[in-house]
Amino acid sequence: MRPPADMIYLDNAATTPAHPEVVAEVSRVLSTVHGNPSSRHAMGLEAERLIRRAREVLAAALGATPDGITFCSGGTEANALGLLGAARAGGGGGHVLVSAIEHPSVLGCADQLTRAGIAVERIPVQPGGWVDPERAAAMARPDTRVLALMLVNNETGVIQPAADVIRAVKAVTPRCVALVDCVQAFTTLPVSLADLGADLITASSHKIQGPKGVGCLASAPGVKLAPVWGGGDQEQGRRPGTENVAGIAGFARAVELASPDGDAQAALLRVLERAALEHLPGARVVGEGGRRAPHILSVTVPSLPSEVLVNMLEERGVCVSSGAACHSRRSLASHVMKAMGIPGKHGVLRFSLSHATTPEDVDGAAAALGALGLTGAKR
Amino acid sequence: MRPPADMIYLDNAATTPAHPEVVAEVSRVLSTVHGNPSSRHAMGLEAERLIRRAREVLAAALGATPDGITFCSGGTEANALGLLGAARAGGGGGHVLVSAIEHPSVLGCADQLTRAGIAVERIPVQPGGWVDPERAAAMARPDTRVLALMLVNNETGVIQPAADVIRAVKAVTPRCVALVDCVQAFTTLPVSLADLGADLITASSHKIQGPKGVGCLASAPGVKLAPVWGGGDQEQGRRPGTENVAGIAGFARAVELASPDGDAQAALLRVLERAALEHLPGARVVGEGGRRAPHILSVTVPSLPSEVLVNMLEERGVCVSSGAACHSRRSLASHVMKAMGIPGKHGVLRFSLSHATTPEDVDGAAAALGALGLTGAKR
Repeated sequence: MRPPADMIYLDNAATTPAHPEVVAEVSRVLSTVHGNPSSRHAMGLEAERLIRRAREVLAAALGATPDGITFCSGGTEANALGLLGAARAGGGGGHVLVSAIEHPSVLGCADQLTRAGIAVERIPVQPGGWVDPERAAAMARPDTRVLALMLVNNETGVIQPAADVIRAVKAVTPRCVALVDCVQAFTTLPVSLADLGADLITASSHKIQGPKGVGCLASAPGVKLAPVWGGGDQEQGRRPGTENVAGIAGFARAVELASPDGDAQAALLRVLERAALEHLPGARVVGEGGRRAPHILSVTVPSLPSEVLVNMLEERGVCVSSGAACHSRRSLASHVMKAMGIPGKHGVLRFSLSHATTPEDVDGAAAALGALGLTGAKR
Repeated sequence: MRPPADMIYLDNAATTPAHPEVVAEVSRVLSTVHGNPSSRHAMGLEAERLIRRAREVLAAALGATPDGITFCSGGTEANALGLLGAARAGGGGGHVLVSAIEHPSVLGCADQLTRAGIAVERIPVQPGGWVDPERAAAMARPDTRVLALMLVNNETGVIQPAADVIRAVKAVTPRCVALVDCVQAFTTLPVSLADLGADLITASSHKIQGPKGVGCLASAPGVKLAPVWGGGDQEQGRRPGTENVAGIAGFARAVELASPDGDAQAALLRVLERAALEHLPGARVVGEGGRRAPHILSVTVPSLPSEVLVNMLEERGVCVSSGAACHSRRSLASHVMKAMGIPGKHGVLRFSLSHATTPEDVDGAAAALGALGLTGAKR
């Protein structure tokens, strides 16, 4: 097998390679900015200034005020702070709505809330993989405190009608806090608190060619959040702990470097889609016909297990996945595919692009699909 | 004022400059290891191998098994996972003991437990700044679930008789989980689960010349922990979220680079102590006569506010602090000094060293103390 550095990497929904300029920025900060941002002396203030600048970059990118940006360790923690923080800020009891296809970080925290006596309900999705706003509104209650919905599903790339769902739910219960997990959407689709009508938005650095270990929660003015843990005054007390200064600076640099290239990505994804349908037996695009993001393609292959498909492509030098990385060690059927009514025994292949993916990468992957020697769905 | 890069940095208890070899390792990993450790393909396995190696380094350093190491975002999160995780693992109710001089991350989480109906009590300290084992044992109850005690206090450098306190408390309630915050002690004093008789130990990367944004909790076999948030399977489900691969590798490198230099540090600290007592009016060493770590010196100066002292030294090119960085924006009296009976209006200066501190740094700081032109306690 080829060494990792020579492989074609099409698993960017799991994580993206850090941009060379991000690596340079992280190294620069690590080797020259030594203070603790909470320290009052010159070295502390220098570190604080860097974080303030990064906060402004993220605020501008997410349509928030700088005060509304809370840096944390990643998308998972950001989702936890948003969901647990908003649900707990109002005291005990009440009702929470999450979609059935949320990321495990949201569903795992929803389970915690259930154990704490909060009534949590999962909004089912249509066969196309998206939440119907009317269905969500019908499940909303006057005591619904939080609605959690992702913008782009990490396994399917299907875009959720988040603004419509939020509008419909808030028509029933205006004080409900709407949390939108934008981890897979950020820097590929436009993302803003105002456009979504959201109160909380989450983003992750390592999904946009930034370093791992950094993410943020953007909150609209006035949204109350209980911190997940107590401690120091960092991040206005919302997220105690010494800030990951170099990581935060790298995250901001990644945001600045990300250019909207949705059309180019969509063109690359079409090449992959054609090749997958041509060369994989019985292949079907997941979420076919619906609105899909330009960087994630998921196909089902009824006759072959996911692991076999992933391994066959890896032997030909292409890294893809069978779905979410965070559960890839388990051989459980995906909760997302299950929610969409896709049989658990169907194999699934996910191809996902980053801003760094090239036409050569995609052509190489298409050639690898052809070289599998299988009979495709379309001939 | 001098630019930050030219200053003498003696605020290493707040944070340490990253070691150049740590910076190199973080940069190397960021620019060459691109996979998600949870991905099954070659690029994922490459990332996972790095984490496994780092886990072995930390396990050896803390007297744990590799499986007992849970990586997280820093010392604050490690303390939260230890205290909240152990207290919540046993269901509701019960009793928790923490010392009165714990780090805000422990005290803040203790407050969360109080609000959740757990009886939390703070063990007072002796005037010398240490917990008396007999006093702790007298406060232990049959339902005491967790005892949290730091090994070296971050504001005073006073070493707690942690092993004795744990032994005394476990004699009363053997099933109590003992959590020792070793953030300030790690790599300066010997730290191990077995030697301390502890069930849980916490450590932070940026206090030992590693990158910010990484820490770990070491747990003895069989200790049950509820995760702080739900989500993916990372870190055996104890700490969901994509691992900070480069940060974790940098943390391990910092551990490997740290050499025991306690005697050398103690000699440097004595130089600072003599200069402080000579040049600061009414100065007294906090925790005088007790067991103190070789890298933290705290002195009280009754006649001058802390901020004035810190600013005067900063003008002469020396960065020190008045206590913990995480609360330095507040002008509140320190809970640690208060617990030791030191009047809130007394100024406090904390000098703290890292493995990188040189005799020249200390001589420069001593000269700056002399140049303040104040009359010292000893002439």
